Amino acid sequence: MPEPDTLHRLISELARFGATPGGGVHRLCASPEDGAARTYLCDWLAGHGARVTVDAVGNMFALFELAGPDAPLVMAGSHLDSQPNGGRYDGAAGVAAAACAALSLAQARADGGAFAANLCVVNWTNEEGARFRPSLLGSGTYAGHFTSDHALARADGEGVTLGAALAAIGFAGTDSPPPAPLAYLELHIEQGDRLERAGVAIGAVTRNWGAAKFEIAFHGEAAHTGPYPMEKRRDALLACAHLIVGVRALADRHPGALHTSVARMEVFPNSANVVPDRVEAAVELRSADEGVLDDAVAAFDALVEDSARTAGVSAVYLARSRRGIRALPPQMAGLVMEAARDLGHSAMSLDTVAGHDALSLLDLCPVGLFFVPSVGGLSHNEKEYTAPAQLDAGLAVMTRVLMELCQTARVGEGERWHEAVG
Amino acid sequence: MPEPDTLHRLISELARFGATPGGGVHRLCASPEDGAARTYLCDWLAGHGARVTVDAVGNMFALFELAGPDAPLVMAGSHLDSQPNGGRYDGAAGVAAAACAALSLAQARADGGAFAANLCVVNWTNEEGARFRPSLLGSGTYAGHFTSDHALARADGEGVTLGAALAAIGFAGTDSPPPAPLAYLELHIEQGDRLERAGVAIGAVTRNWGAAKFEIAFHGEAAHTGPYPMEKRRDALLACAHLIVGVRALADRHPGALHTSVARMEVFPNSANVVPDRVEAAVELRSADEGVLDDAVAAFDALVEDSARTAGVSAVYLARSRRGIRALPPQMAGLVMEAARDLGHSAMSLDTVAGHDALSLLDLCPVGLFFVPSVGGLSHNEKEYTAPAQLDAGLAVMTRVLMELCQTARVGEGERWHEAVG
Repeated sequence: MPEPDTLHRLISELARFGATPGGGVHRLCASPEDGAARTYLCDWLAGHGARVTVDAVGNMFALFELAGPDAPLVMAGSHLDSQPNGGRYDGAAGVAAAACAALSLAQARADGGAFAANLCVVNWTNEEGARFRPSLLGSGTYAGHFTSDHALARADGEGVTLGAALAAIGFAGTDSPPPAPLAYLELHIEQGDRLERAGVAIGAVTRNWGAAKFEIAFHGEAAHTGPYPMEKRRDALLACAHLIVGVRALADRHPGALHTSVARMEVFPNSANVVPDRVEAAVELRSADEGVLDDAVAAFDALVEDSARTAGVSAVYLARSRRGIRALPPQMAGLVMEAARDLGHSAMSLDTVAGHDALSLLDLCPVGLFFVPSVGGLSHNEKEYTAPAQLDAGLAVMTRVLMELCQTARVGEGERWHEAVG
Repeated sequence: MPEPDTLHRLISELARFGATPGGGVHRLCASPEDGAARTYLCDWLAGHGARVTVDAVGNMFALFELAGPDAPLVMAGSHLDSQPNGGRYDGAAGVAAAACAALSLAQARADGGAFAANLCVVNWTNEEGARFRPSLLGSGTYAGHFTSDHALARADGEGVTLGAALAAIGFAGTDSPPPAPLAYLELHIEQGDRLERAGVAIGAVTRNWGAAKFEIAFHGEAAHTGPYPMEKRRDALLACAHLIVGVRALADRHPGALHTSVARMEVFPNSANVVPDRVEAAVELRSADEGVLDDAVAAFDALVEDSARTAGVSAVYLARSRRGIRALPPQMAGLVMEAARDLGHSAMSLDTVAGHDALSLLDLCPVGLFFVPSVGGLSHNEKEYTAPAQLDAGLAVMTRVLMELCQTARVGEGERWHEAVG
């Protein structure tokens, strides 16, 4: 067993890379800070007996061989990249918990325990989607949603590709990724406040909210902001402002059942004396109810048209995507709930509203995802915080579930692990 | 007299520097493109007998000595810098017209005409305020509104100062600027559509609209755009969207009497998955009626508060300024009207809604400012256009007025040339 505070020390050490004055981390995917954190993690895992490989898109796999080279694989992890000025727990807590759990399993093996599966701790590339879009790029590539070439060609706002950025930090790997695992487990901070409000330690995720995402461009006409007649103006920013107000109103019509956001936008030419002729915005609508989401999407499409018409501009959809509502495998959630109960921690099932690497793997293997509380539900914020005792509870649950999976190499009774809902 | 198409050739030549595919120019102040245009103009003027000097803030003065070294000075000009992807006439037409008029006066002098004043053609630095803020920086420094040190320390979005940018293009001058002129005359394109709608060739400006300008920052709280509860969100972008919609509504309450705009904004961290925690926006309110402007400013202040409250964020004024409504000297406008009439061009008096270098000099000397039409009123746009015949009319008026001023060295009867209104 590792020392009791190994997890907290590892989280603190990782938080040094890209540390912000406000106590968070600014560690964009494949940045020098991310490279330094990756190198630290690599050394840490290798120093504890793992064999670390890196695939073409920079996903890091640390193999703890517990049951011989031909045994099946159980996988656990999360991501080290962060949002701009993000928190130190989002992603890193899940990687660190998987790494610390691996030490316990390795110790049990050294103490003579019998294992039927090996454990692989993973750090997925570009979960956040902050520097390179889309999010879940590394885990999605591993799961076959994207080719490596496609992933590597994604470019950031400065035109730097993921491939070039990974090469620059020494993490453009050449190793083949491991085969599909027997099961995948991920711990993450909740990023909402349901556990905190309920006073519960562990949240086993049983459902993933659906999401409709849009990239909208409004095209107006540049003119002088002073003399040009108001009635002739075709103001792309005014259209986008109507859209933002309307998107929030959509959520207010479905309290708690629909989450909406407009969080990224670009204004052109963005000069105080030029009526904006182009504005681009990223919009998200999320719900656990397909009917609500359908209604919201229809209302949104009408809103785009109304906003454009009101401002006398045209609207173009640069992208639109829909992620369906998905159930997570009840057997994996059951293992998490059972482990929590056996360890004396309160537990509940809940939804995930946010995307997580675990969700990329839903079609690949039985997937378990569970949350520990985040204070105030605050995340993507330097003030993001999860107390040590809450992380300890999460690590204990993760260790127990991984122990069972790796010792038995079986996940429940082999039923079908998941199905689409709605 | 210069060749008939000298003006059009000069405008076309200047438009090569920073030319955009859409037929406009992207020639930000003190950029390499601006430097090339300045060098071209300098050579052109020197080649036609002017002595060109450059002051500390890069203002270019081209002296045509018509009446001996001790004679008073008449000044005419405008600016060569443009908005991003702006038009080829805004500013450049005024500089070119002054330069071509100077050739006519020089020719008249060579033909034996008697002159009592010299003529100075000027290109003012950073009129637009697009790269460096505020606008009218060069003419304002000449008029004593700013010190040279203050102007040179203004920095662009990348932190490059005006001083460094001017040095990089070789236009950090060391010459003393000329003394205050006897009078200043500027031709500019209208940038509105009043002349076009009235079918009139020349607009003599008699009044400058007042303007209230604001830089507002909204401060919210970063959080995940997915799981974080809607009712807890403190979304700085939502506040700004309410503000933008409300600022437009202010103008709609005063049709034709109040122009409003929000044209520049910055969103932080501007990541699709982070509720924006800071948004900054530049707002302008303009009117020729102090009462309307007072009401609009009061309504705007209330709107800032309402917008912030609605989104649960705080608002901070980073800057607020007010430019009063000013009358322009009727004698100078009278000279323009008279010249137009004598030349057979229709003329009317009108307001300027936009700021122009001429306005910087209002407290320094009698100032004349007149407009030629811009098609559709479109400006700060690559499609900005003024027909050659309309430019010819403007040049003819400018030449006639400058001829009179430089031959007599008198502006009307010496009354007080301007007074504050309201």
